Amino acid sequence: MAVPPSTYPRRLLPLFLGLFQGALLLFFALFVTYDEPSAQAEDTNLVANQVYSTFPFFQDIQVMLVVGLGLLLTFLPRYGFSALTHNFLLLNFSMQWALVLQGLLQHFHHGQIHLDLHKLLISEFAAVTVLISVGAILGRASPCQLLVMATCEIPIYLASEWVIVTCLGVLDVGGTITIHIFSCYFGLGVSKALFRATQQPLHPKETPTPSSDLMSLVGTLILWVFWPSFVAVLCQPGDAQHRAILNTLLAMSASAITTVVASSLLERDGKLSLGHLQNGSLAGGVAIGVVADMAMPPVAALALGSLSAVVCVLGFRFLTPLLGRKLKLLDQCGIHNLHGLPGILGAAASVLAVLLASKDTSGSQPSQLSPALYQAAGLAVAIGASLLAGLLTGATLRLPCLARPPERLCFDDSLYFKIHDQAESPGPDSSAEEGALALKEQV
Amino acid sequence: MAVPPSTYPRRLLPLFLGLFQGALLLFFALFVTYDEPSAQAEDTNLVANQVYSTFPFFQDIQVMLVVGLGLLLTFLPRYGFSALTHNFLLLNFSMQWALVLQGLLQHFHHGQIHLDLHKLLISEFAAVTVLISVGAILGRASPCQLLVMATCEIPIYLASEWVIVTCLGVLDVGGTITIHIFSCYFGLGVSKALFRATQQPLHPKETPTPSSDLMSLVGTLILWVFWPSFVAVLCQPGDAQHRAILNTLLAMSASAITTVVASSLLERDGKLSLGHLQNGSLAGGVAIGVVADMAMPPVAALALGSLSAVVCVLGFRFLTPLLGRKLKLLDQCGIHNLHGLPGILGAAASVLAVLLASKDTSGSQPSQLSPALYQAAGLAVAIGASLLAGLLTGATLRLPCLARPPERLCFDDSLYFKIHDQAESPGPDSSAEEGALALKEQV
Amino acid sequence: MAVPPSTYPRRLLPLFLGLFQGALLLFFALFVTYDEPSAQAEDTNLVANQVYSTFPFFQDIQVMLVVGLGLLLTFLPRYGFSALTHNFLLLNFSMQWALVLQGLLQHFHHGQIHLDLHKLLISEFAAVTVLISVGAILGRASPCQLLVMATCEIPIYLASEWVIVTCLGVLDVGGTITIHIFSCYFGLGVSKALFRATQQPLHPKETPTPSSDLMSLVGTLILWVFWPSFVAVLCQPGDAQHRAILNTLLAMSASAITTVVASSLLERDGKLSLGHLQNGSLAGGVAIGVVADMAMPPVAALALGSLSAVVCVLGFRFLTPLLGRKLKLLDQCGIHNLHGLPGILGAAASVLAVLLASKDTSGSQPSQLSPALYQAAGLAVAIGASLLAGLLTGATLRLPCLARPPERLCFDDSLYFKIHDQAESPGPDSSAEEGALALKEQV
Repeated sequence: MAVPPSTYPRRLLPLFLGLFQGALLLFFALFVTYDEPSAQAEDTNLVANQVYSTFPFFQDIQVMLVVGLGLLLTFLPRYGFSALTHNFLLLNFSMQWALVLQGLLQHFHHGQIHLDLHKLLISEFAAVTVLISVGAILGRASPCQLLVMATCEIPIYLASEWVIVTCLGVLDVGGTITIHIFSCYFGLGVSKALFRATQQPLHPKETPTPSSDLMSLVGTLILWVFWPSFVAVLCQPGDAQHRAILNTLLAMSASAITTVVASSLLERDGKLSLGHLQNGSLAGGVAIGVVADMAMPPVAALALGSLSAVVCVLGFRFLTPLLGRKLKLLDQCGIHNLHGLPGILGAAASVLAVLLASKDTSGSQPSQLSPALYQAAGLAVAIGASLLAGLLTGATLRLPCLARPPERLCFDDSLYFKIHDQAESPGPDSSAEEGALALKEQV
Repeated sequence: MAVPPSTYPRRLLPLFLGLFQGALLLFFALFVTYDEPSAQAEDTNLVANQVYSTFPFFQDIQVMLVVGLGLLLTFLPRYGFSALTHNFLLLNFSMQWALVLQGLLQHFHHGQIHLDLHKLLISEFAAVTVLISVGAILGRASPCQLLVMATCEIPIYLASEWVIVTCLGVLDVGGTITIHIFSCYFGLGVSKALFRATQQPLHPKETPTPSSDLMSLVGTLILWVFWPSFVAVLCQPGDAQHRAILNTLLAMSASAITTVVASSLLERDGKLSLGHLQNGSLAGGVAIGVVADMAMPPVAALALGSLSAVVCVLGFRFLTPLLGRKLKLLDQCGIHNLHGLPGILGAAASVLAVLLASKDTSGSQPSQLSPALYQAAGLAVAIGASLLAGLLTGATLRLPCLARPPERLCFDDSLYFKIHDQAESPGPDSSAEEGALALKEQV
Repeated sequence: MAVPPSTYPRRLLPLFLGLFQGALLLFFALFVTYDEPSAQAEDTNLVANQVYSTFPFFQDIQVMLVVGLGLLLTFLPRYGFSALTHNFLLLNFSMQWALVLQGLLQHFHHGQIHLDLHKLLISEFAAVTVLISVGAILGRASPCQLLVMATCEIPIYLASEWVIVTCLGVLDVGGTITIHIFSCYFGLGVSKALFRATQQPLHPKETPTPSSDLMSLVGTLILWVFWPSFVAVLCQPGDAQHRAILNTLLAMSASAITTVVASSLLERDGKLSLGHLQNGSLAGGVAIGVVADMAMPPVAALALGSLSAVVCVLGFRFLTPLLGRKLKLLDQCGIHNLHGLPGILGAAASVLAVLLASKDTSGSQPSQLSPALYQAAGLAVAIGASLLAGLLTGATLRLPCLARPPERLCFDDSLYFKIHDQAESPGPDSSAEEGALALKEQV
């Protein structure tokens, strides 16, 4: 099924993207506009304050997704350009696609869609699901396959988010259920259907080098620093947002320390694994999202952060190899350990938190049934919908025209990028050239 | 003309910078002060709000210039220290120099200059012109030449900005005309006059390595993320600023995707070129600056972003080689493709936007003549003044005392930095040292 | 005393951290809570505004400490993982530990500790002292030793800060005396007591490579950009904060340029030293902290920035070798040149500034004695207390159970991390594997 490199179809990617940009321009020309400028000074102040209160969070999230996540994915030593560029491309494509779908589905007031920063932010959140799901098949899928995956995933995410948040009234301010769990099982479904029963052997280009692992660790640290902005941006300003920031900081701090403990205890010689650090430090941020703004004591945030780091590291050590052996499931970046397991832990915590919360919060629920049940139902919907949709999407990605890279060019930038074939260190022979240049100058 | 390394003049740089710092201290001691502290609580609140509304933008811009642009320039594999350090040095020097000139020229109220964050920001914008112009001659000019260039460029920029914005009333909130176009043609003028008719051969140290290209790509991504802050910082708070942020986000998103399309279509084997990605993704940000806060539909921002990416990639593919062959013009970083062509596109779009705008905007123009004409006139002034001034400045830089680096030490950090000559990988012989150390410890 | 690698105790680190996390959970469960949610809309607005005015500064500081400082420490080419990870671990551990101690010592109202962003920020400041002190012994101490050091340093810092700021009424908004000077001499004391009279030979793994020096320089630039946030975050909003930002920007700009002058003049061949650039550029930020919000003319900030850069570079060139020879003092990162000398300079400037200030500021002092004397007394307390406490702490770190790394594995990640032993460049033999893979695919 994989395409030999000589006949690798090169025109599909620009064709697909070009057509999409054309359609996007048409759609924007027909339907999208800005809000009318505010007529009064008070309104102007309001808009200005909205910008000042949202934009710094928005920029933090952009840094996370473009730089932090991009760098985290560069642990594959010969796949750095692809990891950074595909991540960047998918973010932009998915955000635009989500903007279109959102416009069509939800915001069709008076035939015009009014664009604002908040709608861009919501689209950015939708795009995050794609960037996470990619982690399951990183390095073994072509950009065309990734774009088709994004095309399928965004509408399914929007529908599932609508069911979970709007219909079921699930509380999930940081996207633990709607984003992390959804995208994790979607990605695993895609991986399963795309690679089927063939267990992938360890590829020689798959092993990180010290320098690629270092870049990846820097990516983790950038994600770690800005994670509170991601969780808190959509919170109610005031106490809820303040609490969300604090809870996220506590959870991630506990994750960072517990990851070191767990990784050191699990490895036979007590050394730390970089994979554990790169992922476990962020597990608390995944888990805390769903409960971050709830009224719970700070110790709960710490405990959740610690537990999710333990679960994440255990997942890498035991579950990922097991799933590989038993289910022949490929999970290249271990997204099940970073997004799946901590997400489920967070969802369970939210059930508990809602159960324990005083009765006055239940007023916001759409029915008289227990809100805790709805949280659990949201989790079930997210897992079920995403797995099913992922399997279907993965089957679609097997279409031969989508140009799956040949095995020996997996994890290899040279399939997609013009790489200068000059040796990294010109070494002794460069002196000859230099001598020639020096001679030339003396003339 | 280039100086052999043994007699390379080493004392000029500290002498120049030392004298400048001395003069700056004197100038500040005599003329510069802070505003009087506000006497009333209301004023204090006002100042606090100004800080909160400007400072995050200011920091974003600092990250762009110091980290993002610095990294973007490290694509030359043996010139990373020089690229980062010269960029950093020129930013600081130019900002201080602009602060002095601004103080002398514009803000001489009551014999004292009152310093505030807004004036620092304006000086930072002036410094950007120098950092862009350097791109034309990167790697082939000494730090002294770069500092002399900055010394000439800043006053000419301030004068040209005054003519364009204050006299002609040109609208250019993001500096497309006043900063990008000006600095591009200034840099090309310098390059032409400095290197004259000699076509530069491809230097063996000029080719990027995968790791230097990766750092450069990270620099691009940092610039891409924070670009909206650069465009929007000087906008009117409220709707205009909101619109400027949205337009910039849309334009840059379109640029990112269109660059992939264009690069993939232009290369014979359909692979992406890193140079295209590093520059084309940013082209939309250059073009949108001049129209970002105008009342135009969102589709215009998308279209402008797409078009400027196409123009940028086409420029790299066809125009730069052509200019090299025909005009013997050296443009090391391709600033004409990133700043010149998209800038002109943006300026043309602003003429159109002003033409189409309703009559009520024309009230802000200084005369009864069509505002669209003024936009075009601003473009002409920027190109003409910068080219002329650049040619003159470039001729000045040929002064032998300015220590142009010898050809074989172009693109080489070792001319300016103490480099540890230890091999990168100690390899097998390190075990001998380690053995000796281990022996020593057992004693 | 150093432990041979085969018997290197691996279980101490997870044991120590695990117990600490357990105790932290217990402490939080018993004593820590959030503020009651605000009942009224006005209070909600107040909380929201506090978040918006503090959080961007807080995030900037997190970037500085986690990414900027982490990268700065990666100049040791084989110690990058350890430098980044230990820095990250110590930040989290010290912050949590400071949170506990602060709770116990200062904030025990009604048996409950109310957590907010401001208290987290204060704890973060406490953690900074540990991160600075580590610089003296970087690469030669085990993580357990570093954690024990943090355990000792945090309470001593809190006590010393209480004496200096609360009892003596010393003005030190940017932490020059309380943080930089304190942590510098604490670290030097630890280094002296830990390594005693043995002069450490130059270790073969100690020399930076170009790529590790480049990462370190990027770290410096990140610190440089965000430093104003660190100095200004705790200032009174309004004029004082505005002035603190401006003064810090001016001081750091002067430092950047003066470092180039000083480094170039001091090296025999006029080339720049990367060590000087990495540290000197930041010296102005250290010195300005103590006077940043005082009413002094802008020229003072410039002069202080220039002087501290000179002092820093001179320290690297002359004082560090001297201290190494005469006192057998090891200062791996040169913290005395970056934090000690510029700190003392800043403290001296603050004495002068307070002396020159008008009488109306003396009202805030606790007694009728001259406030200038108190500034000097604060400096003396900081140096005295930190040196003494550092020596005692260093003696504690000699406990054999704390697993000091063996000399030949100093500066080596492989003692703490699982490193993939694959060669960096698979080279010619990879083609064999690729051939096998290609063959396999054809089947």
